[in-house]
This record gives sequence, C-alpha cells and structure tokens, in this order.
Amino acid sequence: MLTVLFAAKDERWPHYRDPLARAIAEAGIVAQVMTKADPALVDYIVFAPNGPVYDFAPFKRAKAVLSLWAGVEKIAPNPTLRLPLARMVDPGLAEGMVEYVTGHVLRHHLGIDRYVHGLRDWSPAVPPLARERRVAILGLGELGAACAQALAALNFRVSGWSRRPKTLPGILARSGEEGLVRTLAEAEILVALLPLTAETENLLDARRLSLLPQGAVLINPGRGAVIDDAALLAALDEGRLGHATLDVFREEPLPQGHPFWGHPKITITPHVAAETRPETASRVIAENIRRGEAGEPFLYLVDRAAGY
Amino acid sequence: MLTVLFAAKDERWPHYRDPLARAIAEAGIVAQVMTKADPALVDYIVFAPNGPVYDFAPFKRAKAVLSLWAGVEKIAPNPTLRLPLARMVDPGLAEGMVEYVTGHVLRHHLGIDRYVHGLRDWSPAVPPLARERRVAILGLGELGAACAQALAALNFRVSGWSRRPKTLPGILARSGEEGLVRTLAEAEILVALLPLTAETENLLDARRLSLLPQGAVLINPGRGAVIDDAALLAALDEGRLGHATLDVFREEPLPQGHPFWGHPKITITPHVAAETRPETASRVIAENIRRGEAGEPFLYLVDRAAGY
Repeated sequence: MLTVLFAAKDERWPHYRDPLARAIAEAGIVAQVMTKADPALVDYIVFAPNGPVYDFAPFKRAKAVLSLWAGVEKIAPNPTLRLPLARMVDPGLAEGMVEYVTGHVLRHHLGIDRYVHGLRDWSPAVPPLARERRVAILGLGELGAACAQALAALNFRVSGWSRRPKTLPGILARSGEEGLVRTLAEAEILVALLPLTAETENLLDARRLSLLPQGAVLINPGRGAVIDDAALLAALDEGRLGHATLDVFREEPLPQGHPFWGHPKITITPHVAAETRPETASRVIAENIRRGEAGEPFLYLVDRAAGY
Repeated sequence: MLTVLFAAKDERWPHYRDPLARAIAEAGIVAQVMTKADPALVDYIVFAPNGPVYDFAPFKRAKAVLSLWAGVEKIAPNPTLRLPLARMVDPGLAEGMVEYVTGHVLRHHLGIDRYVHGLRDWSPAVPPLARERRVAILGLGELGAACAQALAALNFRVSGWSRRPKTLPGILARSGEEGLVRTLAEAEILVALLPLTAETENLLDARRLSLLPQGAVLINPGRGAVIDDAALLAALDEGRLGHATLDVFREEPLPQGHPFWGHPKITITPHVAAETRPETASRVIAENIRRGEAGEPFLYLVDRAAGY
C-alpha cells in the first residue's frame, strides 16, 4: 500500500478527502491518503505552498511532489526539493478561468459597468462588434490558450504573446521582446495570464504599460507580481488606462489600506478566477501516482530551471 | 465618380463616415458620400426614416434607396418614392445580440455586479462552473438559436423553448404550454428573445414568472411587451426573482418616472443589444451600390405592395 501525504491547508482536507479517495480507487491504485505521516514512509506528496511542508529533505523515499496549484513559483526554488515536481493542470480550473476571462472581457467590451451602476437617462451607446475589438493574452500556457480560443470563438481579434514561440489556430501568436511591444501596442483589452518568474516579475512596468492604446483595459487573473502596482496606479490616474480588473495581488488577501481598494478605475475580485476544483484535480493527482508506479513520465512536470 | 447621399440622423454620420468609405472602396467603387447634396446629382440614397429626406421626387437620377433600417413600414408607403427600395439585413445585428446575451449571462453567472459595485473586504465566493448552470432561451428564431449555441459552447446547460417544435444540436428544445412550464421551472437564468405577437404579449405574466426557480435572473433583449411589467416588479420586490436586465420596453425611451428607473434589482440598457452596426451595414450598402452599377439585382429588395 502506498502512502500519500496531503500537505495543504487543513481547511482544504474536507474538500479533498472523498474526491481523492475516489480518484485513487478509480485509477486502480491501493493507497492511504494521510494529513500526517512519517516523512520516511511517504511515497507521494500532494502539495500546496500554504500547507505544513517546507523541508523536503526527510522525504527520502518519495517519488514526486504533486502540486495542487497551477503556479509553482513558491516551491520551484526550494533548495530542499530534489524530487520531480508536477504542477496542477485542472480541467475544472481551466473552465473556471475561461468563464472569468470571457465574462470580464465581454463586460469591458460591452461597457456593462455603466449599466450596472445605473443609467439616469436613456442614452444609447452601441459598442463595436467583437470582430472589431482587439484582445491580447499575455501567456499562452494551458489557461492562456484556452481563453484565447474561447475569445476567438466569440469573434474577438485575439493576439497572444509568450516567451517561447507558440502556434495556436486562429490566434496571432508572437514571442520575444519585439513581439511583446507589438502585442501591447494593439491591445484594447489585455489579459495577463503569465506565470511568475524572474523574467515576468514587473513585466508590466511603466514603460510597457505606456505602450497600450489610450483607454485600454487590463485584466489580471494570473499572478499579481507581474504588474508594477505603482506604475498601474499612475497609468490609471493619468487617464492613459481605462480600467483594471485584478484577481491576483502581490499580497493576498489584499491588505486593508492598499490604494487598489476603492479605486474608481479598479475592480477587485478576491482570487476567484482559478479555483482548483477537488473532483477534477483529484483525478490529475491519481493519474500522476498511477504514472509514477507504472514508470511512465509524470504529467505537467515542472522545468525547475525555467521556473514553470 | 458616384454621389451617395447619407440621409439619416446627423448624429449617425460620425459612426458611418469611415465604415462607409472603407466598404465602398473595398467594393471597388469610386464614390463620394455626402450628408448634403443637390438631389439632381445623387446616385444612391442611404436612408433612415428619422433623417432629413421626405420627398424623393427631386432625386431624378438616383438608382436606389438603401435603408439602414430592417423595418421599412415608415418609408414603403411614401408616394413620392418611385425608386427601388432595399431594406437592411445586417449580419452584425445577430453578432451583437450574441455578445450582449453571452456577456450578461456570464455577468449574472459569475456574480460580477458585486465586484463592479466594489468589494469592501476580501471575501471570496467561487461561482459554480457553467456546466452546473441552467440557462433557458425563450424563442429559438435566428437570434435565439445563435445565443443558445454560443452559451452551449461555453458549457452552460442550455434549454430552449419555441411555440413550434424545433431541433438544435446541444440544446434541450421544448415547445407548447407544457414545454414552457418545464423550461421556466429549471431556468436559473432566463433569456427572452421572443417576437411580439398576439400570443407572446404578456407571456411572462405573474403565473409564469412564479414558475421560475427562487432567485432566478431574467434577461430581455427581445420585445418589451412580452413581460407584464407589474408582475415583474412584484416578483422582484417580493424577492422571488433575483434580478432583471432589460434592453427593451413597452415604451421607448423608457418614460421618466417609470418604476424600472433606479430599481435596485433592474439593470436598464437602452435598446443597445441589437443595433444596426456601421461596419457590417456599410458592407451591405456598398454591395448594393456595386450591384446597381453592375446591373445586378439588389439584395433585400422590398416588395412595395406587400410592404416588406
């Protein structure tokens, strides 16, 4: 019998206990999932960065760390980690992200806020069609690619940028610094779905934000630290950017007193865009344990050098 | 060089100037589009009933009147009009409707209003996935069917109802009175896209609104008079319905003092869901000018005797 350690926040355990047991049984694996175990006896570590495990050295027998999070910037640099690390690619998470991004892109495209705040008089203002609206996605991983394709299916003119060249049907995909400059220059609505790495931290700084078209809208459901907060506030306050809808922040919960709170051009959503869903995530975990036992390559293995 | 007179409301001209010029150039036509011209020199009249032209007699050389409106009941009976009359069939209108309906369904699905009004504290509330959300469309004509399919592509559980039986891939389509009862009973989000006829006037009355699930949301971008206004207000005020987003009304503009104005559970959009779009409408106009010059039959020619 395998021993699987569930090393996430205590409060997540009730959500995962049954789905994990079901998924492991369905994968044909005999395993006990525990929230506490002698590290020397653990075969697989199901991991979240806000859980109890910081030092991986005592896990001498473990075969892999299976992250419950898509972002691994908090664990990838851990010097005690010498095991394979798989990040979570949860089909439920991707669906939720597509819905969030599509909903907020349409909200800004249609100018819905004006109506939600309440019209005072009959003053029609017809938006352009999606086929006349340029939306750009920074980051073309699983989530960025899924959002790009959902938006293209709604006729938006979608371009995308990633560090390494990628090809996506129906999407104008660019890479490199020059590609970034051109992508920003045409983005009426910009969606940031970048991983957080040394290269992407503060990627959206004052210089790059200044490349966006006048009145552009920024949506960030990816990682908070890819935006320079002060530069974003300046661009909004000077009227160069129209609005920012932010789901992620350098510090979460967003601290009381942070200038984002109550800012008339910022919409705060409290990290709701990409929640891992226990049912679907548990199946990914179980499949990776099955692969580990069968000697097959793990799904979604992290390139520790690249950081994602 | 042809002379095209733009005979619509002055305020529409800035919206059409560039799209018309582009569409005409792309159709390979050499023409000047003007808002004022000597009638004797005009080759084509781009027309809206609320514009400056009532008497067509002086347009002795013109080859056609090209309406910007789909409905021609205000011009068809004009005794001074002896020219061919084409009505507008704008593909952009259906696209705009799909974007409006998808945007507002996602807005209610994701609970976006809470964030637009501004969070006061960090209080995550993750919505269900679209695959767990039931949306119903009343009316499965061209617009209703297009909206149903766009929502199904986003994984919503879509059902539809029409007076006469229809079949749509991926949609649970019902008809008849019993079908309506079952459709309403499961509609967490209800979209009304019914034509206005003797049968549909007040179709959403107190009895039928009471069939909706507790907290359901109603979106009406079709025809205002399919809803019994007083019954809707009662259902909202008694807390049985969660919200109504209304684009159409019995009287438009919605009269000052109407109880819909300022109602906390009603979002008013001023008939913007299905507007003729300058880009796509301009292409229809340009194509008809090209046809006129090539001696080909006009598109969407009105049968003046029938009146449409």
